Amino acid sequence: MNKKLVLITLLSVLNTTIIAQDAETRLKEKGIALSEPSKPVANYVNAVRVGNLLFLAGKGPTKPDGTHITGKVGKDLTIEQGYQAARLTAVNHLSVIRSELGSLNKVKRVVKVLGMVNCTDDFKDQPKVINGYSDLMVEIFGDKGKHARSAVGMNALPSNIAVEVEVIVEIEE
Amino acid sequence: MNKKLVLITLLSVLNTTIIAQDAETRLKEKGIALSEPSKPVANYVNAVRVGNLLFLAGKGPTKPDGTHITGKVGKDLTIEQGYQAARLTAVNHLSVIRSELGSLNKVKRVVKVLGMVNCTDDFKDQPKVINGYSDLMVEIFGDKGKHARSAVGMNALPSNIAVEVEVIVEIEE
Amino acid sequence: MNKKLVLITLLSVLNTTIIAQDAETRLKEKGIALSEPSKPVANYVNAVRVGNLLFLAGKGPTKPDGTHITGKVGKDLTIEQGYQAARLTAVNHLSVIRSELGSLNKVKRVVKVLGMVNCTDDFKDQPKVINGYSDLMVEIFGDKGKHARSAVGMNALPSNIAVEVEVIVEIEE
Repeated sequence: MNKKLVLITLLSVLNTTIIAQDAETRLKEKGIALSEPSKPVANYVNAVRVGNLLFLAGKGPTKPDGTHITGKVGKDLTIEQGYQAARLTAVNHLSVIRSELGSLNKVKRVVKVLGMVNCTDDFKDQPKVINGYSDLMVEIFGDKGKHARSAVGMNALPSNIAVEVEVIVEIEE
Repeated sequence: MNKKLVLITLLSVLNTTIIAQDAETRLKEKGIALSEPSKPVANYVNAVRVGNLLFLAGKGPTKPDGTHITGKVGKDLTIEQGYQAARLTAVNHLSVIRSELGSLNKVKRVVKVLGMVNCTDDFKDQPKVINGYSDLMVEIFGDKGKHARSAVGMNALPSNIAVEVEVIVEIEE
Repeated sequence: MNKKLVLITLLSVLNTTIIAQDAETRLKEKGIALSEPSKPVANYVNAVRVGNLLFLAGKGPTKPDGTHITGKVGKDLTIEQGYQAARLTAVNHLSVIRSELGSLNKVKRVVKVLGMVNCTDDFKDQPKVINGYSDLMVEIFGDKGKHARSAVGMNALPSNIAVEVEVIVEIEE
């Protein structure tokens, strides 16, 4: 292996490492496009920052066209459909984070997630549903995306959305 | 318009602005009287402060006489009745805030609200109910009252109260 | 009373006071053994620290053998059984706290508890259930254990566990 090849290999490894640390690049690689988050119509906002903590409002599985994934998991939706709803909810939180901070790369840590699943009274797999949210966060932020979490069942959510998630994020200073 | 009139007009505008920034004055203008908050009987407290954050215990629509607005929205109560219950819950949180800080004017920002509505499984308008809480906060604190929020449905709440709300408040240093 | 007796009495009072301020000693006195907390299998963690705040993931009444106290309070479980489930949940949070901080004595304050009770739609005594959690925290931490709290009903929880609790803890610097 000549010196040039070694250099190219090193640069390649370095590049991969840098890419691996960059949430915006990862998002691009996955082909996930973030649209401008919808503004709440009532007397509240999408996020409030206090010091290095960003508290995000609860979001649900709202599609780019403004419609939602609706229904109760365990009756109207399967676990896999609930998982996809939770994943879409994570995308919507990413939109809010970028809108607030300018770039996802300013996230230091995803701190705390409350994952609420619209489900039947006998449904027991809320964690498998909220994994859709957690998995996307870790895909985008790596270890910084690993959060403390609760995944619980709800008897009803606004507009009958399948999931609603709240999150607290720590910001790079 | 002579100079005196200009001066009076300017002072009037200035005065309105100052009033508009003062939560205690706004509360007074609205004729809302705050009573001393009830002390929890169990092993917990109404609020805990950490740095400039005040974490408030969940409160419900308890009236000055100690009775509550009870029932499930979508069955026992209309959306409008739920809205009034949420508004009363906000008044009870204001009592706690003043009791803890001495004055509502020490609030820098209402940060995060978790609004829980006691409702039927098919109820979909939790946000319209929790607006009763959010609207009062913005009436009293103006833009400082705008918070990140979740509004969700619950199958049951203590003593069958109509709503329970948790809030985190940022304090002026 | 001679001088020696006075001295012994004083030392005894002093000793009791010191013991009373030490969470690890209290835990030992109560004969509560903490096992290593279970690691989440999904993409999340037991706790995330930001500054002097520790955000803990939701935990439930998991026994040392890995099985859970399950069922809905008001149907499958009595209030007293729910209370014991909440108490066991507190023990599991203590395990996480010690695992994260090395010692319970590093807790400055138990800040905020969200106590969620798996229950029937007509159950009204969520606070009596979550008292099992709050009481243990105060038994172990004394006044430092007194937290802001919400105690609410849920229609369903993971694996049908009887309670799930989230907590935020302030750490000694």
